[in-house]
Amino acid sequence: MSTVPQPTATDVVALLREALGSRVDTAPEALEAVRADKSGHASAGAPLAVVHAASVADVQQTLRIATATRTPVVTRGAGTGLAGGANAGAGEIALSVRGMDRILEVRPDDLLAVVEPGIINAELNAALAPHGLWWAPDPASREISTVGGNIATGAGGLLCAKYGVVRDAVLGLDVVLADGRLLRLGHRSVKGVTGLDLTALMIGSEGTLGVVVGATLKLRRLVPGATRTLAATFPDVRSAAVASAAVTASGIQPAIMELMDAVSLEAVHRLLRLPPPTPGAAQLTIQTDGPAAAVEAEGIADVLRAAGGTVALAADEAEGERLLAVRRAMHPAMETLGTTLIEDVSVPRSALPAMFDEIARVERDHGMVIPTVAHAGDGNLHPNFVFQGTEVPAAVWDAAGDLFRAALRLGGTLTGEHGIGVLKRRWLADELGDDQWQLQRDVARVFDPLGILNPGKVFAV
Amino acid sequence: MSTVPQPTATDVVALLREALGSRVDTAPEALEAVRADKSGHASAGAPLAVVHAASVADVQQTLRIATATRTPVVTRGAGTGLAGGANAGAGEIALSVRGMDRILEVRPDDLLAVVEPGIINAELNAALAPHGLWWAPDPASREISTVGGNIATGAGGLLCAKYGVVRDAVLGLDVVLADGRLLRLGHRSVKGVTGLDLTALMIGSEGTLGVVVGATLKLRRLVPGATRTLAATFPDVRSAAVASAAVTASGIQPAIMELMDAVSLEAVHRLLRLPPPTPGAAQLTIQTDGPAAAVEAEGIADVLRAAGGTVALAADEAEGERLLAVRRAMHPAMETLGTTLIEDVSVPRSALPAMFDEIARVERDHGMVIPTVAHAGDGNLHPNFVFQGTEVPAAVWDAAGDLFRAALRLGGTLTGEHGIGVLKRRWLADELGDDQWQLQRDVARVFDPLGILNPGKVFAV
Repeated sequence: MSTVPQPTATDVVALLREALGSRVDTAPEALEAVRADKSGHASAGAPLAVVHAASVADVQQTLRIATATRTPVVTRGAGTGLAGGANAGAGEIALSVRGMDRILEVRPDDLLAVVEPGIINAELNAALAPHGLWWAPDPASREISTVGGNIATGAGGLLCAKYGVVRDAVLGLDVVLADGRLLRLGHRSVKGVTGLDLTALMIGSEGTLGVVVGATLKLRRLVPGATRTLAATFPDVRSAAVASAAVTASGIQPAIMELMDAVSLEAVHRLLRLPPPTPGAAQLTIQTDGPAAAVEAEGIADVLRAAGGTVALAADEAEGERLLAVRRAMHPAMETLGTTLIEDVSVPRSALPAMFDEIARVERDHGMVIPTVAHAGDGNLHPNFVFQGTEVPAAVWDAAGDLFRAALRLGGTLTGEHGIGVLKRRWLADELGDDQWQLQRDVARVFDPLGILNPGKVFAV
Repeated sequence: MSTVPQPTATDVVALLREALGSRVDTAPEALEAVRADKSGHASAGAPLAVVHAASVADVQQTLRIATATRTPVVTRGAGTGLAGGANAGAGEIALSVRGMDRILEVRPDDLLAVVEPGIINAELNAALAPHGLWWAPDPASREISTVGGNIATGAGGLLCAKYGVVRDAVLGLDVVLADGRLLRLGHRSVKGVTGLDLTALMIGSEGTLGVVVGATLKLRRLVPGATRTLAATFPDVRSAAVASAAVTASGIQPAIMELMDAVSLEAVHRLLRLPPPTPGAAQLTIQTDGPAAAVEAEGIADVLRAAGGTVALAADEAEGERLLAVRRAMHPAMETLGTTLIEDVSVPRSALPAMFDEIARVERDHGMVIPTVAHAGDGNLHPNFVFQGTEVPAAVWDAAGDLFRAALRLGGTLTGEHGIGVLKRRWLADELGDDQWQLQRDVARVFDPLGILNPGKVFAV
C-alpha cells in the first residue's frame, strides 16, 4: 500500500528511547512478562519494548511514534485479564499505564473521583473509605487489577445485580487516540447527553479504540450497617440453581449470591483443609447489606429452605467472611488441579438451571469434568476447563464452543465480564451476527484508521 | 457526485405508497403536525410524507426506499422533544414509530421487559405495576413521551440521582440501519461485554445512527412503603441551592429534590390560584422513599433548617403529591407568560449555587428575567427564556449562549437530558472540542454513510 520504506524494529525502539529515555524497557524479563495475562495464554513472541508511561504526555509520545512508524501498541495495566486482551507480541509496543496510579481528585459532595488508569481497584477503595465512599465495580481480581483494566474490559464482579456494572459507574474518560491526540469524553455531572456517548463506547473496548489515561468515576456512599451472610447446601447443582432463581424471583435483592458446584466445592475444601462436603452437594453463598440486611437474610433463608436447601446463617460478619472465603478460594483451588481455562458465559437469571443442564450435557458429550461457579445473582457462570500443559487442547475448545452456543441459545452471551481478547474472538461473530461484527469493526477503524491499537484482539479471526 | 438521475419527491411518495399503502400519510394536517416538537421550534417546510409504521418490516421498507432514493428520514415518537430533534422538513420522510406500542414480554424473574418504541412511558409503567415492577427513567413528559423517544434523547427526569439515567436502564436494542438491515444489539443478561457497546452508543443518538424498533429494558422492583415529601422555602434562590448541595453532601439520598426560583414559584402559584409566595422566596421540594423514608425525611429537614430553610413536612402521600404538583405545573405556568425556550444545562452538584450566580449575572448583563427550576438532586437546571412570537429572538440566543459557556466553565454540560437536536447544535463543538466533534461525526457516518438519518440535527451547523 505504501512505498515509503518501513522503519525497522531498531528504529522504533530508538525513537521511543529518544522521546522517553529510561521509561523504555527492553530487558528480556520485562518483555517476557508482558506476553501473557492471567489466562495463561501467551503471545507467540516478545514485543519490541515495554514503555512504562508515567504521564499523559508519555502515552501521547508513544502513540505518536507508533502512528509515525505504524507499530502496533498493546495497552496494559496489571496484566490480570482472562482473555489475553493485553498480551503483547512480536513487533508490538507494550504500553504499560500501571505506573500512572494517582488519585487526582475525590469529591464527596459530587460523589465522584478522578483517577489515573493504573491505580489498583482495592487501593482506590481503601482511599475512598475514609470519605465514606466506594467505587462499586468489584471484580474478583480487585486486589490486583487496575481501574483502567476494569474499564477496558467492562469488568464485572459479585455485586453487579444490586450495584451495577462498570458502565453504570463511569462518568467520563480521558483518552489518547492512536495518533496521540487527547480527548476528554463524558461529563462531571450526573446527567449529560451532548452528542454520542463515546464514554460508554470506550468501556469494554479492550484497547482497540484508544488509551484511557484518566477516568471520572461515579461513586456511591458506603452502605451503612452490618452485612448478613448465609450459606445453603443442596443435593445437586440444579437444585441450587433453581433456588437462586427463586431468590431473584422473590423480589429480595441480595448484594452477593454465589453458586459453587460439587467439584468446585470439593476442590476448595481440600485446599483449605476443611472437612469434605457431602458428595454431590452444591452450595449457595448469599450476602445481604443495608438497613434491612437482617430481615432480608431471613426472607432469603425461607426461600432457600422451601427450595430444599440446608441453610446456615453466619452469626457475625467474621463468620460471614469465612463463608465467602470458600468462594474466593475457587481460583487457587483450580490451579492445584492443572492449567485452567476460566470461561465466562452469562444468561438471563431464569435460565441458570437450564444452563447448568447444558454444562452437564457438555460434560457427558465431551467426556470432561467442568467445575463451575456462578455469580448466580446476575446469571454469570464461570465453567472451568482444567488441563495439563500450557496450550489449551483442541478438545477443550470444542467443548467450550459447544458451551458458548448453548449460552447463546438460552438468550445469553459468550462473555459476561472477561471480554473477548484473543481467546474468544473466533466466536464473536456467532453472537453479534456478521452485520454487527462488521459495523463494530468499522466503528473501531474510525478511532484507529491504521489498525495499530491492539491488532488481532477482539475482531481478528 | 452521482450521475444517476435523482428521483423526484413524487417518485419517493409513490414508492412508499406501493410498499406501505395506507400507512403513508400526505394529508396537509399530518405533514404540518410533524414539523414541530414541544420546543415550539418548527422546520421551514413540510415533509414529503408521514409513514405510520406498524411493524419492524414497515421501518425496514421505509429505510430501503430512503436509501435507494437518498431521501432523508426523521424518526419520530410522540413529538414531545424539546430540542427540535424530531422535526421533519422539506424533502424528508417523517417516520413515526408511535403506532408500534406493544409490550412484547415482561419477565419479573429476569427483571426485564421487551417493548416496541412507541409505547408511552407512563403506559408502560402502568402495565408493569401489577407485576411489582417499574422502568426508572421518569422524564417530566412521562405521561406523553414514548420509551423510544426517551432512549433516543437519553431522557432524564426527577429520579436520576437515586435511580440512574436511561443508559443504566437499557440492556439491548433492536435497530434498523439506514439501509434497512435489522441488528440486535446488547443482551438479555445483566452482564455482557462482547465487543463494542453499541447499545449505549445508540442511547441519546437522536435518530442519527438508526431507528430503534425494539428495546430490552432493565426493570426495578417497585420501592415498598410510603414516600415522605417536604417543602422548604428560603429567602433567595442561592440559599436554596446551597441547601440542596448540603443535602447531597449530608449523605442522605432523596428520590426527588427539585428547586424553584422566585419567579417560577410566583407564576405557578398564580396559575394554580394558590396564595402568593413570599416575594423573592425560592423553594425546595424533596421526596424520600423506601424503608427509611421517614427517618431520611427528618434528617433532610434538619439539614434544610440548619441552612436557613422553613420546612413543611407533608402529613401523608396525598399532601406530598400536592407539594410536587406545584413543581409539575412549571411548564403550563411558563406557557401563560409567552413562548418558552426551556434550557437544560447540567453542572456537578456542588456547583449549583455558582450556576445560579451565573444565571443572575446573565439576567443582569442581558436585561432579562430567566425563571429557573432545577433537578437539584443531580445538578440539572432548566432556565426558561420567555418571549413573544414563534421565533427565538437573537437576544435570547445570545443570553442562552452566555449561560451555556458558564455551565461549561463550571465543569458542566449544554444539555443534561433534552439533547442537541437543532436548537443546540451550534454550541456542540464548544463542549466536545473540534477533535471529538469530528470523531463523533465520523462514527455516525459509519452507521449512515449516505447521511440520510436525521440530517441537520446534532452535528450540522
